[in-house]
Amino acid sequence: MDYAKESLRLHYEWQGKIEIKSRAKANDKDALSLAYTPGVAQPCLEIQKNPEKSYELTRRWNTVAVVTDGTAVLGLGDIGPEAGMPVMEGKCVLFKEFADVDAIPLCVRSKDVDEIVNCLSLLAGSFGGINLEDIAAPRCFEIEEKLKAKTDIPVFHDDQHGTAVVVAAAVLNALRVVGKKIEDCTIVLSGAGAAGIAISKLLLRLGVGDILLCDINGILCRDDDSLKAAQREMSKITNKNCKHGKLADAMQGADVFIGVSAPNIVSAEMIQSMNEKPIVFPMANPVPEIGHDAALEAGAAVVGTGRSDFPNQINNVLAFPGIFRGTLDCRATEINEEMKMAAAEAIASLVSDEELCAEYILPKAFDERVGKTVAKAVAEAARKSGVARI
Amino acid sequence: MDYAKESLRLHYEWQGKIEIKSRAKANDKDALSLAYTPGVAQPCLEIQKNPEKSYELTRRWNTVAVVTDGTAVLGLGDIGPEAGMPVMEGKCVLFKEFADVDAIPLCVRSKDVDEIVNCLSLLAGSFGGINLEDIAAPRCFEIEEKLKAKTDIPVFHDDQHGTAVVVAAAVLNALRVVGKKIEDCTIVLSGAGAAGIAISKLLLRLGVGDILLCDINGILCRDDDSLKAAQREMSKITNKNCKHGKLADAMQGADVFIGVSAPNIVSAEMIQSMNEKPIVFPMANPVPEIGHDAALEAGAAVVGTGRSDFPNQINNVLAFPGIFRGTLDCRATEINEEMKMAAAEAIASLVSDEELCAEYILPKAFDERVGKTVAKAVAEAARKSGVARI
Repeated sequence: MDYAKESLRLHYEWQGKIEIKSRAKANDKDALSLAYTPGVAQPCLEIQKNPEKSYELTRRWNTVAVVTDGTAVLGLGDIGPEAGMPVMEGKCVLFKEFADVDAIPLCVRSKDVDEIVNCLSLLAGSFGGINLEDIAAPRCFEIEEKLKAKTDIPVFHDDQHGTAVVVAAAVLNALRVVGKKIEDCTIVLSGAGAAGIAISKLLLRLGVGDILLCDINGILCRDDDSLKAAQREMSKITNKNCKHGKLADAMQGADVFIGVSAPNIVSAEMIQSMNEKPIVFPMANPVPEIGHDAALEAGAAVVGTGRSDFPNQINNVLAFPGIFRGTLDCRATEINEEMKMAAAEAIASLVSDEELCAEYILPKAFDERVGKTVAKAVAEAARKSGVARI
Repeated sequence: MDYAKESLRLHYEWQGKIEIKSRAKANDKDALSLAYTPGVAQPCLEIQKNPEKSYELTRRWNTVAVVTDGTAVLGLGDIGPEAGMPVMEGKCVLFKEFADVDAIPLCVRSKDVDEIVNCLSLLAGSFGGINLEDIAAPRCFEIEEKLKAKTDIPVFHDDQHGTAVVVAAAVLNALRVVGKKIEDCTIVLSGAGAAGIAISKLLLRLGVGDILLCDINGILCRDDDSLKAAQREMSKITNKNCKHGKLADAMQGADVFIGVSAPNIVSAEMIQSMNEKPIVFPMANPVPEIGHDAALEAGAAVVGTGRSDFPNQINNVLAFPGIFRGTLDCRATEINEEMKMAAAEAIASLVSDEELCAEYILPKAFDERVGKTVAKAVAEAARKSGVARI
């Protein structure tokens, strides 16, 4: 199927991928007096007495804002806020279909961190959480950090943390396939942007031996004074031995390669230079760092990509619906590292020892157990780590 | 029925009066590739080329934000943004049920005009229009004015303009009942706040002879230096003869009384002092300026109130759904006076000469013709006045 052409045709037909559905009737005078005036004054007064009641008397408990500034939409770059909306609406469809979360798409006409943060924090009383989406680095880090500090509802940048959770799940299960322990592994991560940094942090929390984080100039190293703030911070917690060199140097002897960078930058030779039974996740989209089949032919033991037309699709949809479902269910004040780790482990746990093999390390996107299992694990982790409110 | 008690019970049961409904499928790999990546890139690129396409390829064409700061909710006053949300959700239900408009409830945690205006203007690319609601005067005037100047989508403060449209429709038909011409009439308006001022302006556009606008101190007069800005502006276009006095003085000889002020401030004597066949619309809620039956007994020819338990309910639901339907249908850039007049006349036109009588001056809220007739008239007026884009 020509997805581009058919998708455009369908978008004209859909005239929007989501709409509002009423849960209350307004079909006679009594119905109107209960859903609206004068009856509605009573729930208003209850919330005035205790604003927390907005989680019971309005849809807030189940509502998430899905927000972009349109600056890093898919692989298309800075295409503008309105142009990002088809993706936001699509995300809202996935939130509803995979986890019954009511997600509201919003695009912000600004590239100014404080302006975006102020705008969203002023609206926080309307939502149970905020999902940031397709915002360019490094602005996305600042927005997330400042917004977290300024609001009382959970904030989650899916391109960072959703990706990190699914990649971590894939790493955990690929290591089961090849029989290695995470603490013995060196992982090479190509792409030191939003996703690469978030993946690195979560893998470090999961106990990985070492990470070599690479950008276009090569391995990040703490003795490099030219690094920008986010990369400098990462250089302090990765690359233990202060190794210098390019991506090819990093990959020599490494156990896992994860790519969130650029097409066709990994060669067969680079894979052959890795440790035995190398795990290779080239996830650049739509053209990966090395093709799925080429990686296998070069000797990769497990290969996963972002594409749905090959085995082991590493797809955010395994993570974000369940993560928000669990977060909303326990009314967590934030989505912390414990919750993300729990989500990764929950996704990984859905592949049994019997099923597990090089071609099957992650559950399918349409496996109905995924959202529920992730939600349960996330809510449990929230309770254990003290951020759940119910 | 005890509306307060039953409404509260239902609000706990509803757990929110609206939710999101998907219009696109996400039930298999192809569906996901069309509603989301990779297919969704194509509509994004179309909108990047021409942002106006967001009205065809996303739900923007049918979406209105319903926004409050929680400072003037119903008659409850400043109860806070979250506490205003049950009313906003209720309004969204009415938008959907009466005009198939997808309305999104938002509450803003600010009382600062510029902060609210900036926040909403940054989000304008997400919506086809903004309905302001339950915002205290005089802030509501400033917010509306500044937001109109700053955005390219229509902005409508329903407490002002929706009320004005329905009151104007009621006045037009009550005058048909008593056989008076609007240009010969003097109308007394008690309440010089947001609603009172908007009603005055629309009645002036409809050609009323004179208006005496009264606040708690009496009739507004241009020689009073103590008036605030909004009232001073109104004093220049009302009270032609610079009449001084209290509400009782204003009512002597007047043809119409409209109250959007306070309970029980109008006596039988005051009504008896009016011109022959007086029209009396005491709309303070829930307790009117004078009771429906008391007004009739005092000699009023036509009585209308805000209450649904008496004849002639003057109810905004007759106006705002159709006004926004018509505005969205022709993609108008604003909701101007011509469109409001057209809406008032359209509502009035739905009561035929045969049906028209003192107890029946307005169509019923559930009359299915209302939304469609108002929408058509509003879109036509938008086209005629040059603000329609399609």
